[in-house]
Amino acid sequence: MQVAVIGLGAMGMGAARSCLRAGLDTVGCDFAAAAREAFIEAGGQAVGAADALPQGVEAVLLLVVNAAQTEAALFGPAGCAPRLAPGAVIIASATMGPDDARRLAARAEAMGLLYLDAPVSGGAAKAAEGAMTVMAAGSAAAFAKARPVLDAIATKVWELGEAVGAGATVKVVHQLLAGVHIAVAAEAMALGIRAGADPRQLYAVVTSAAGNSWMFENRMARVLEGDDAPRSAVDIFVKDLGLVAEMARGLNHPVPLASQAQQLFTAASAMGHGRADDGFVIRVWQALTGIPLPGK
Amino acid sequence: MQVAVIGLGAMGMGAARSCLRAGLDTVGCDFAAAAREAFIEAGGQAVGAADALPQGVEAVLLLVVNAAQTEAALFGPAGCAPRLAPGAVIIASATMGPDDARRLAARAEAMGLLYLDAPVSGGAAKAAEGAMTVMAAGSAAAFAKARPVLDAIATKVWELGEAVGAGATVKVVHQLLAGVHIAVAAEAMALGIRAGADPRQLYAVVTSAAGNSWMFENRMARVLEGDDAPRSAVDIFVKDLGLVAEMARGLNHPVPLASQAQQLFTAASAMGHGRADDGFVIRVWQALTGIPLPGK
Repeated sequence: MQVAVIGLGAMGMGAARSCLRAGLDTVGCDFAAAAREAFIEAGGQAVGAADALPQGVEAVLLLVVNAAQTEAALFGPAGCAPRLAPGAVIIASATMGPDDARRLAARAEAMGLLYLDAPVSGGAAKAAEGAMTVMAAGSAAAFAKARPVLDAIATKVWELGEAVGAGATVKVVHQLLAGVHIAVAAEAMALGIRAGADPRQLYAVVTSAAGNSWMFENRMARVLEGDDAPRSAVDIFVKDLGLVAEMARGLNHPVPLASQAQQLFTAASAMGHGRADDGFVIRVWQALTGIPLPGK
Repeated sequence: MQVAVIGLGAMGMGAARSCLRAGLDTVGCDFAAAAREAFIEAGGQAVGAADALPQGVEAVLLLVVNAAQTEAALFGPAGCAPRLAPGAVIIASATMGPDDARRLAARAEAMGLLYLDAPVSGGAAKAAEGAMTVMAAGSAAAFAKARPVLDAIATKVWELGEAVGAGATVKVVHQLLAGVHIAVAAEAMALGIRAGADPRQLYAVVTSAAGNSWMFENRMARVLEGDDAPRSAVDIFVKDLGLVAEMARGLNHPVPLASQAQQLFTAASAMGHGRADDGFVIRVWQALTGIPLPGK
């Protein structure tokens, strides 16, 4: 089966390598020469633009930043949709709102292509292992056609029904929780430090108690180490909480905590920390109150 | 060892029974006759006011609502402090700010009494099993004297150092996280429902992914069941997030997410849901947007 992976970033590179390992004939696509070279070294083929993909690709997995990049790579002037095999499946895994997912699916369908609304979670490490989680919605035909790729990249595929948009909705709601959990982890850790608590003791107590979250445990460990190398960056949550706000506004539905959290990530980005690991939103409190941060 | 437990509510009753089971000579104290009768039925003794406790109690565990009730039960006109044995230990387990903990410890010390700043977590079920978590700070002498009671009521005792206030600080920071996690669980679930997601599917995806929190998993299960019987009520978080705000204000430290969450619990309380289980803060969104809630 001929497969293309568009976007060889932290997630896409891992997914593309997982496809190779699973024996799929895989072409990667990225504007960045370094990413293409890394994928060629790993045994794959690579092109620099979507319209340079070979004719007749049967499944294209898009792991780009957002709906606009997804749309450009598929349907833009240099998009790949006209070159895909008849009945090929588009696996759209960028985080986007459900309205965008439905719009892109309609364009694909009009060209005789299948569409899977299939956002992912798991981070770069899981992507590299072929162990992502996929939250997918689409027709039975789209699932069937996409199956070899899903099997290669994921250990868990949530099948959320036939209606495109269900995957995007669950992912956006998930990002609401993830973003607020990171921001409140920083708020709580900052308050504890300000009040004189030992940050490592505080971490130990919280992670063993009902106040824990997956994000507190994962991200505050990095803050305690002073390790701000981005696994997921502050600016990702400026963007994803922006998607939350956009979806909520479209539904006329208030999301006060998500809005507040987005302002905190925006403040961190404004300070120049947009590319720091997202838990370092704690630097907003450091800037405001002068608390010392733990670390190296 | 003669022990008193003041406050036979959800947590205190469990702790008092756990003391009995451990073979401690335990007197319960509560204004409510029904609570006293239940404890007497369980094999304990009970009195209706702190100044009716027997002379010479060696350890008094306070599981009342706040610092004011703790202070009244110890040092008020009908307080028990003058009746305690010389060198007895006060185990102060109500949630309160660190300044109150330090003030009460100083009063105890001036009377020749030991003081353990010892807030708890775990809920009524853990209290009944003698399996609470205690976050404690105080002198080595206070820990030593309190040990038989701590062993009876808890499976985990965090020893946070000699400085009274460290226990209270960690508990208040913990409640900041717990309160925001509950409120954002409701915000996310409400948005998902509004967007047409299946709430059970959304719960299944989130609880298996990085967006999970202990509170989301625990409280949204009750929302899905439509079971609003209070294990921990909305009004508890109006109070505890109020303590967060008070401690933060005293430190001149901003807590925007905690403040927003407190407003949401306050809104639920204003609607008449103060005694509902805390996850039913989701009724704020139901009232605003008309979303249907799952359940019975």
